[in-house]
Amino acid sequence: MSGLWFTELQTKNFGITMKVKKTLQTEKTEYQMLEMVETEEWGNMLLLDGMVMTSQKDEFVYHEMMAHVPLFTHPKPEEVLVVGGGDGGVIREILKHPEVKKATLVEIDGKVIESAKRFLPEIAGKLDDPRVEVKVADGFKHIAESENRYDVILVDSTEPIGPAVQLFTKGFYAGIANALKEDGLFVAQTDNPWFKGDLIRKIFADVKEIFPITRLYTANVPTYPSGLWTFTLGSKKYDPLKVEKDRFYPVDTKYYTEKYHFASFVLPKFVEDLTK
Amino acid sequence: MSGLWFTELQTKNFGITMKVKKTLQTEKTEYQMLEMVETEEWGNMLLLDGMVMTSQKDEFVYHEMMAHVPLFTHPKPEEVLVVGGGDGGVIREILKHPEVKKATLVEIDGKVIESAKRFLPEIAGKLDDPRVEVKVADGFKHIAESENRYDVILVDSTEPIGPAVQLFTKGFYAGIANALKEDGLFVAQTDNPWFKGDLIRKIFADVKEIFPITRLYTANVPTYPSGLWTFTLGSKKYDPLKVEKDRFYPVDTKYYTEKYHFASFVLPKFVEDLTK
Repeated sequence: MSGLWFTELQTKNFGITMKVKKTLQTEKTEYQMLEMVETEEWGNMLLLDGMVMTSQKDEFVYHEMMAHVPLFTHPKPEEVLVVGGGDGGVIREILKHPEVKKATLVEIDGKVIESAKRFLPEIAGKLDDPRVEVKVADGFKHIAESENRYDVILVDSTEPIGPAVQLFTKGFYAGIANALKEDGLFVAQTDNPWFKGDLIRKIFADVKEIFPITRLYTANVPTYPSGLWTFTLGSKKYDPLKVEKDRFYPVDTKYYTEKYHFASFVLPKFVEDLTK
Repeated sequence: MSGLWFTELQTKNFGITMKVKKTLQTEKTEYQMLEMVETEEWGNMLLLDGMVMTSQKDEFVYHEMMAHVPLFTHPKPEEVLVVGGGDGGVIREILKHPEVKKATLVEIDGKVIESAKRFLPEIAGKLDDPRVEVKVADGFKHIAESENRYDVILVDSTEPIGPAVQLFTKGFYAGIANALKEDGLFVAQTDNPWFKGDLIRKIFADVKEIFPITRLYTANVPTYPSGLWTFTLGSKKYDPLKVEKDRFYPVDTKYYTEKYHFASFVLPKFVEDLTK
């Protein structure tokens, strides 16, 4: 039908709205409501429980910033785990690093992977790479059962409602510490500072109790609430602010650069205050 | 009435939508449609021709970033001009700098000033400061008639439609150069890189032909399209990237910091590409 608009209320009183060409898929999976829409502005777009997850036009921001910051921080990221991230965008970016021997994706909802492969092929296309293992399983459990195994863990989850609730708990961060090798590090997406300041403050404090190096960085994702997204990084040994110049090599990106790596940790004052 | 929502279509196919408690003012002025609404999420909000200009909750970002970056870059900003900016927010930030002897506001639409004084008092409150001169006049003409007069000029305009069209022309930037003293500098708001990349590229190239030092910086304004806003700075002598440490002093801010001053010039790759 024509004249269709999709609106995501990002708070009770504020949201984004966009013109939809076509609904490509609507499916109630075991875990959530999955919708794929073709939008005029952003191309194909994946929605979970009515929230924008990723779109063809702006996906590069989130995926590049989640992957390259930690992968350049670790001097030899051979074993990498992605929790969530069924669209495959973070995996695609991880594989741009030749040190990576194996990238494991643990996504709870196999339907997300199927849908992304079908409707977002340029995002999901690397899920079949020989260096990638895809497991449809509970990321929380996978973390709890892993020990001293990963160099880098990336938590590419939905918001802390629905299946992702337990991925925002202190117990989960403790499990991550245990699943990482002795010099490992992790990054989790941690929502936006305009509407979710309290959540960011709590996560940062929780992670800081467990990891000697805890840092917050941001990126501009125009289809996410407020356009300003945060990532929390916890590290046992390597500091993202002290990466040596010779560690960097060219990767094909549209957002991330070596200079932006460092600048992304410089926070607006009201965001910096959440880390204190 | 209840159940009221305001939607700004920021492109033909994408926009923001927000709950409105009350419409406080609706007035067709000589120059534009002026509306003031009380929103649930952002407090009182000024709209011109249906576009969000400023809101009580997020106004600090734009006003701080437009004022403090150039005012710390210039070592002695005594005479400052604001073109547009009738809400008074940039003036408020300018006055936080003790070197400023006089701040002149040239706003074409006196109704904007009146409305802001009434409904946005914490933004407009400094327009009556003894260091401030408010002129209701055409900024383009004021610039054309000024010579070797200002240390810093700030162009706080609406988008390049309606009364602000001529504020985005090369002739205007040449006029600014003429209105500035021999070591003067200016900043103009220059829209967002997601939907207006071509405009930013053109402005940057135009300014670069006139000013030896031309820089682009960004800030996150959640109520502006894409959440990522750009500012173009043209300078005859002082480089914002080479401000000495001892030039900075504490100002009361919620967004700007000394470290953020420099970080705001580090651009995402696709934005940096607009300056090449």
